[in-house]
Amino acid sequence: MAKGIPKRSEDYSKWYTEIVQRAELADYAPVKGCMVIRPYGYAIWERIRDALDAMFKETGHVNAYFPLFIPESFMKREAEHVEDFAPQCAVVTHGGGQPLEEALYVRPTSETVIWSMYGKWIQSWRDLPILINQWANVVRWEMRTRLFLRTTEFLWQEGHTAHATEPEAVEETLRMLEVYRRFAEDFMAVPVITGVKTESEKFAGAVRTYCIEAMMQDGRALQAGTSHYLGALIMAHSDDDGLVLPPKLAPLHVVIIPIFKGDAERAAVLEKAAALRNAFQGSGVTVRLDDRDNVSPGWKFNEWELKGVPLRVEIGPRDLAAGRAVLVRRDTREKRPVALDALKDDITRTLPEMQQALLARALQFRAENTRPVEDYASFKAQMERDIPGFVNAPWCGEAGCEAALQEETKATIRCIPLERSAEPGACVRCGKPSEGRVVMAKSY
Amino acid sequence: MAKGIPKRSEDYSKWYTEIVQRAELADYAPVKGCMVIRPYGYAIWERIRDALDAMFKETGHVNAYFPLFIPESFMKREAEHVEDFAPQCAVVTHGGGQPLEEALYVRPTSETVIWSMYGKWIQSWRDLPILINQWANVVRWEMRTRLFLRTTEFLWQEGHTAHATEPEAVEETLRMLEVYRRFAEDFMAVPVITGVKTESEKFAGAVRTYCIEAMMQDGRALQAGTSHYLGALIMAHSDDDGLVLPPKLAPLHVVIIPIFKGDAERAAVLEKAAALRNAFQGSGVTVRLDDRDNVSPGWKFNEWELKGVPLRVEIGPRDLAAGRAVLVRRDTREKRPVALDALKDDITRTLPEMQQALLARALQFRAENTRPVEDYASFKAQMERDIPGFVNAPWCGEAGCEAALQEETKATIRCIPLERSAEPGACVRCGKPSEGRVVMAKSY
Repeated sequence: MAKGIPKRSEDYSKWYTEIVQRAELADYAPVKGCMVIRPYGYAIWERIRDALDAMFKETGHVNAYFPLFIPESFMKREAEHVEDFAPQCAVVTHGGGQPLEEALYVRPTSETVIWSMYGKWIQSWRDLPILINQWANVVRWEMRTRLFLRTTEFLWQEGHTAHATEPEAVEETLRMLEVYRRFAEDFMAVPVITGVKTESEKFAGAVRTYCIEAMMQDGRALQAGTSHYLGALIMAHSDDDGLVLPPKLAPLHVVIIPIFKGDAERAAVLEKAAALRNAFQGSGVTVRLDDRDNVSPGWKFNEWELKGVPLRVEIGPRDLAAGRAVLVRRDTREKRPVALDALKDDITRTLPEMQQALLARALQFRAENTRPVEDYASFKAQMERDIPGFVNAPWCGEAGCEAALQEETKATIRCIPLERSAEPGACVRCGKPSEGRVVMAKSY
Repeated sequence: MAKGIPKRSEDYSKWYTEIVQRAELADYAPVKGCMVIRPYGYAIWERIRDALDAMFKETGHVNAYFPLFIPESFMKREAEHVEDFAPQCAVVTHGGGQPLEEALYVRPTSETVIWSMYGKWIQSWRDLPILINQWANVVRWEMRTRLFLRTTEFLWQEGHTAHATEPEAVEETLRMLEVYRRFAEDFMAVPVITGVKTESEKFAGAVRTYCIEAMMQDGRALQAGTSHYLGALIMAHSDDDGLVLPPKLAPLHVVIIPIFKGDAERAAVLEKAAALRNAFQGSGVTVRLDDRDNVSPGWKFNEWELKGVPLRVEIGPRDLAAGRAVLVRRDTREKRPVALDALKDDITRTLPEMQQALLARALQFRAENTRPVEDYASFKAQMERDIPGFVNAPWCGEAGCEAALQEETKATIRCIPLERSAEPGACVRCGKPSEGRVVMAKSY
């Protein structure tokens, strides 16, 4: 266990915060509520962004960029919008050394500005559909920061599409929901439930809000989405020794640690290690040879485990003599000798296996911690457990009952799953008729 | 000439603004001083960013992300910094529905925050060098907007490196200057002069400011740099009919315009056109078949010329019968028949030729509009011309003389070229001794 990092089982929240900082993913900024995304964290973000961006473009989306500032009058156009967002906003009142005539809100989303531009650009149905995505920073005032999960400024993407007909708009929404699901499962190795939010949980002004819900290792739900991906990625797989990264999003796939005493051994080992590293050039597998002299191999093991590098290759004089190296998996800790001339193939094969294994492990964890519940006493007991998990329970569909359930148990209705069968029953809380089950959980 | 767009020779400034909007690169935002980068403009920006980013990474730079907001106390730490930037800033005074105890400045650069983090991260010389780059939006208050050249918010990149020694820092700066030069010439097809700014033109608080200066078609200088690249790209090559894009940065390389009358011709032409487009799949050459039925071929010609697509393929029934198509170059307007089975090879060969030709043309234009000048009368006369161009003239090195020259002629010293030979002479304005020539020009 890395020094000073509490175990997940002891203090999950502190474990998370320590991992994020010690793996050099992020740091607190000198501005309240804000963070700095450090190079290692940003390299993961770049992989997330690039993978999603390519998937968006395959669906015909194009990127654009809208202004950071939104005039106060725009914010106030839609009552629901302003009620929901205005209290969360940072407000610019001075510019160019002068007080402004009209205050500018730092965008909490670009929705209002984007739709005002669409009004100008769309002349007829021939201009439809418009499929625009934006990668940008947005601001929502937060007093209690949680790195990557809740910060005043965060990076995200927002897609805004305009269609000629409602069925086309719904089809598009479901297509993008599927993109998010596929990204979460294929790249993040995080299984998600796709569903619809209840009326009281939906986005301000929306007809319907779709979502993907993931289970973290403490059995709580996290609504995945661009701004939360990094946080979810960390929490879903990491362990008491640090990050565990799925190979598809790891900036560094393999670290080679040379082991030697004295100059002669050093030269021989480093030569072989460098040859091994060079063999991967242009292969898409990123390999680093950690040839630092000022820290021990054991120290290096710990550091790269903390940083979640999927594979470690240990190579010393005895390995050289035997024509092999030792390959260590970060996820399972499996450690095995591999012949040097088979190493490249082995690594190339092992990385996708690890990607699959992480998803399988997360699926199993979710299955073990998802339960059907029929009565309120059991439900409350479940939510008191260390790992409360997901509960599939019947619900009456009434907002008042939903609010009371949240008040009484701190759990919320995470979503009405898209794939649920009609199942007449009695609401887990109030006993009134229910048409089917919803997913309830404690959440972030 | 596209309708309603003035000629460059009539009104260069209006020509530029019209081109930007009508080619759908950008639009004015409903916020004073701000713009919207539309999908076509953003696609060019993505190509600029990706090309530069890859070049930065080759030099060992990594990306990170620092907060949008800077506490007022940070701004005030460095007197020179605050004097230069504070009057240009947007200031947040309210957040989360409350007045803030300390005002937050929207970053005009991230310099102060980045260095405060470096102070925390750098424990010893072993942590050096740090080579961090950031892609971000920054804000500097502007009342008179010029799309892509002067807007309140703009996208840019800023690299901040920390080194153990000054020679290493200088070496790094020169390496990056060379990256910028190479990018401008190899990708933008815009030749630049690399140099050093005079004391009065340098960046607030800097020891030395390096720059690259490009000549636009109106003979004025533009300091190139990430935030100006798109503006420079447009002004350097475009003509009275619209954009001319260098192939390396063009989102779309080839547009195919089918020409037909009646359904039978339509089917035959579209089939061949689609086959041609499909032949380029995965080739890196982006091809679009414009099969819209509601506009004429001539209308399409104009639209894609306006948008600067490098190559147009016209294909009609007579072409089909002759087994050929007509290939039209956007830069030279050269129009020639090409056998259908040679078209893919021809296009693949022509695109890099066009990239080279654009650079050659820009180099020639710059050469024709760069003059050595020895006396002030000639200098002033030159600056009064329609195309004032660059002047290489001796200068005494004194700030007072530089200020007077600017006052009297509206020209500035653009840079002291890195590659200049010592050449004793007399200052073009005051006649005092000069060690060598500097580049003087009117600028943006």
